[in-house]
Amino acid sequence: MLNMLRTNTVVKTISSMRRCLAQSQLYTRSYSDGNVNVTKKYTPRRAMMYVPGNDWKKINKIPSLKADSFILDCEDGVALNRKEEARNNIKKIFQEQMFSEWKSELSVRVNSIDSGLCKADLEAVLKGPILPSTLHLPKMESKNQLDWLAQELESLLGKEHNIKLIVFVESARSLLDMKELIQHGFTLMNQGAPFTLEAAIFGSDDFCADIGATRTPEAKELLYSRQYFVTCAKAYRLQAIDLVYINFKDIDGLFRQSVEGAQMGFTGKQVIHPSQIEVVQQAFSPSIEKMQWARELIQSFEAHQQSGKGAFTFHGHMIDMPLLLQARNILQMAENLNQ
Amino acid sequence: MLNMLRTNTVVKTISSMRRCLAQSQLYTRSYSDGNVNVTKKYTPRRAMMYVPGNDWKKINKIPSLKADSFILDCEDGVALNRKEEARNNIKKIFQEQMFSEWKSELSVRVNSIDSGLCKADLEAVLKGPILPSTLHLPKMESKNQLDWLAQELESLLGKEHNIKLIVFVESARSLLDMKELIQHGFTLMNQGAPFTLEAAIFGSDDFCADIGATRTPEAKELLYSRQYFVTCAKAYRLQAIDLVYINFKDIDGLFRQSVEGAQMGFTGKQVIHPSQIEVVQQAFSPSIEKMQWARELIQSFEAHQQSGKGAFTFHGHMIDMPLLLQARNILQMAENLNQ
Amino acid sequence: MLNMLRTNTVVKTISSMRRCLAQSQLYTRSYSDGNVNVTKKYTPRRAMMYVPGNDWKKINKIPSLKADSFILDCEDGVALNRKEEARNNIKKIFQEQMFSEWKSELSVRVNSIDSGLCKADLEAVLKGPILPSTLHLPKMESKNQLDWLAQELESLLGKEHNIKLIVFVESARSLLDMKELIQHGFTLMNQGAPFTLEAAIFGSDDFCADIGATRTPEAKELLYSRQYFVTCAKAYRLQAIDLVYINFKDIDGLFRQSVEGAQMGFTGKQVIHPSQIEVVQQAFSPSIEKMQWARELIQSFEAHQQSGKGAFTFHGHMIDMPLLLQARNILQMAENLNQ
Repeated sequence: MLNMLRTNTVVKTISSMRRCLAQSQLYTRSYSDGNVNVTKKYTPRRAMMYVPGNDWKKINKIPSLKADSFILDCEDGVALNRKEEARNNIKKIFQEQMFSEWKSELSVRVNSIDSGLCKADLEAVLKGPILPSTLHLPKMESKNQLDWLAQELESLLGKEHNIKLIVFVESARSLLDMKELIQHGFTLMNQGAPFTLEAAIFGSDDFCADIGATRTPEAKELLYSRQYFVTCAKAYRLQAIDLVYINFKDIDGLFRQSVEGAQMGFTGKQVIHPSQIEVVQQAFSPSIEKMQWARELIQSFEAHQQSGKGAFTFHGHMIDMPLLLQARNILQMAENLNQ
Repeated sequence: MLNMLRTNTVVKTISSMRRCLAQSQLYTRSYSDGNVNVTKKYTPRRAMMYVPGNDWKKINKIPSLKADSFILDCEDGVALNRKEEARNNIKKIFQEQMFSEWKSELSVRVNSIDSGLCKADLEAVLKGPILPSTLHLPKMESKNQLDWLAQELESLLGKEHNIKLIVFVESARSLLDMKELIQHGFTLMNQGAPFTLEAAIFGSDDFCADIGATRTPEAKELLYSRQYFVTCAKAYRLQAIDLVYINFKDIDGLFRQSVEGAQMGFTGKQVIHPSQIEVVQQAFSPSIEKMQWARELIQSFEAHQQSGKGAFTFHGHMIDMPLLLQARNILQMAENLNQ
Repeated sequence: MLNMLRTNTVVKTISSMRRCLAQSQLYTRSYSDGNVNVTKKYTPRRAMMYVPGNDWKKINKIPSLKADSFILDCEDGVALNRKEEARNNIKKIFQEQMFSEWKSELSVRVNSIDSGLCKADLEAVLKGPILPSTLHLPKMESKNQLDWLAQELESLLGKEHNIKLIVFVESARSLLDMKELIQHGFTLMNQGAPFTLEAAIFGSDDFCADIGATRTPEAKELLYSRQYFVTCAKAYRLQAIDLVYINFKDIDGLFRQSVEGAQMGFTGKQVIHPSQIEVVQQAFSPSIEKMQWARELIQSFEAHQQSGKGAFTFHGHMIDMPLLLQARNILQMAENLNQ
């Protein structure tokens, strides 16, 4: 872990970045424009923290935590006999604007469409005058599910509103069809469906259960699925959110897996415990050294372009367009976090 | 290998499991029902052992061996000038019910359709009054091949019979088209083709030869192909059978690769030598410790559901639905083996 | 690196192989036949070396270097204000037959179609009486691009000529659609498009920038993409060319990655510096030991076939058809290099 360690300075810089993030993620139906995507703000989602919708103790901790995004959960984190309670709590949180001054994203994960519970969740959460900015659809399995969701959202939101949508890939079938499913989501958007696909989340534990795989600490059994998932998400310019690190006491292991995920192209990671937030936010932030490298590379590249050299040597590596793009990515990410 | 070692007790438990497996896998045309799938028995296929159809010395050893499944081979294990002999031997084995009291699956691998030898194999093996329960189609390459097979089987078996079908993916083309090919197999089944797809086998050595890869002991060159293969097979609820470990004297290496395969989601493995059977059967069986873990997790989950908690901590890990599914998988597998 | 080291003898053998490679890769419009593919010569492309088209110092070094293939570059290796100069230099090289006695392949990489610079590149390079044998299309992204290229080539070359085409996969979208794109290329060829697809090159640095991945020395982040790329290329019988090793001072690391690529099924590798050529050519050549192994295995196989044994043991491994195919591949490759 030695060469991955970041100094306190970096941690402070990154924390202060996060603190000056977006405004409240809430918006109201009274917006004259109606099109909330007009701002096209980038919503960082480095650490995405699950909070069971029926657990006020955990809900009330949210303002003290510094994850980019919180997922108020109706699904797997909520026992069957508490589903009703969870969706009513979440409804109350939005209608009473309980966290409206608070900076992080506050999103809602409904139950899967196949569970039969989704319609009641949507009605509880999306019928009031104040809406969550972002909705999570777990266990996306078929085009029919997306069609159903588009219709439900249209009947609940009308055509003038639009909600950010995050989809979960959690089975062999879903991964196998991921390209077609996301393509279908964009087709629906082009036809006026009231959602905007922004991210995809890899539900690795359901995926492993589905294919009969056993989770190992190094996650070698997930190399194909994680890397295909990233490729597919990025082909559609979606954020790609990596697996949960389930042993929440092993912070070193969490950091290693987070860094690995960031290196694979993931933009963030699901977290299940407050102790996981900081290390995940760090791993998915560009380091000061990396930003420095990117700035210098870009300057050097521009100088060489003017003098007519294409490929050139920089810090012992041959540099051309692709590395320039990587450098620009890093600065862009830092800028997005700093918006 | 230390932390993978299972105790003698476990080995004994597993061996006794296997001994009380299925009845004979043979069935006769005289079944009044005609639909052999009415039982829907799960056929375990942890170790699948090749036996060349022309080699009586090896054939006669079958009853002394404890693999879940034996493949009487007409294809790559049989020299060209012995094909006729192999198929006639196999015909004799079934017609004379030579192993009819014996518990393991006895299946037949015909030659590939492209070889031009398949029709003669099918006619030899499927014309008698007693049929093998399971047929292997090597080198599945195209939808046309599946169409051809469906027609041949219908003309040989009639519509009232049904044979279990296992397909081999052994080339770049076959892997690339695997989803479409298996989908087509199910389409044919829905149209009344007299077979039931139950498993897919990864023919890694032919695959490597086809893409020009070199096999290494760690099989890093096969990470994508193996993991994609599992994902695709499991999306269609097929058993997924892993590669041969070709160095049959290296039992430690075999065990490591078997455990790795099981962790990736494979349900069994091809074996080419009697010395490989026991270790493979072990690696693809749930251990006593794992079954214990699964039972406790399920009990704990049910208790938490009743008290209204969804996610909870168990042995230091956060548990929710996906892990519950894994636990249920493990017990289901043990139950399948114990049927 | 110890067990990978090849002796000087091997290096010499391989070098002399390369020296008696193909004739000049140039051909002229005056060929009465018109169909340059009539020879169906295999063009080895172990090391493919980039040479910026605007840099005479590097261009003039070509005859002293021993890569199988050189890529005269108009694209990423050439600064924007030198594009005109590069394409004119390349035009001059071919029209004046500057390297016509020279054995290696001399190919041209034009700018991507999306750049808007491609048409001018094609016109400069393909209007003269003497044509390069091989054209590289970077950043292949869509079927429309291939349609456009087919039309441009037909208008520049007429129907009686045919140029070898090498395509680059350099983005998430391109990798995701690789099967469909290459399939479309073959459809165009069947419809008379004047090109012959021979190879695909994995542009890993652009790919990483596109998906937001970070390149690591072990390239774990590229396991899926490289292995899928090989599978897809080989399904269409295309040569598969592996990523650039960007740290050109680390020859040991280059050798490790080259051997790994060869083991995965890649047929060659992009190089960016003369110091990388020899080690790459070695890694993608069959070693004398490997050729010896292949010859012995084939002899042994034929002997066993005649005596009626299919599978048999050779050097402690069970051998059947797939390994025989691998052995034949190795000798075929050696023969191709020796044509």
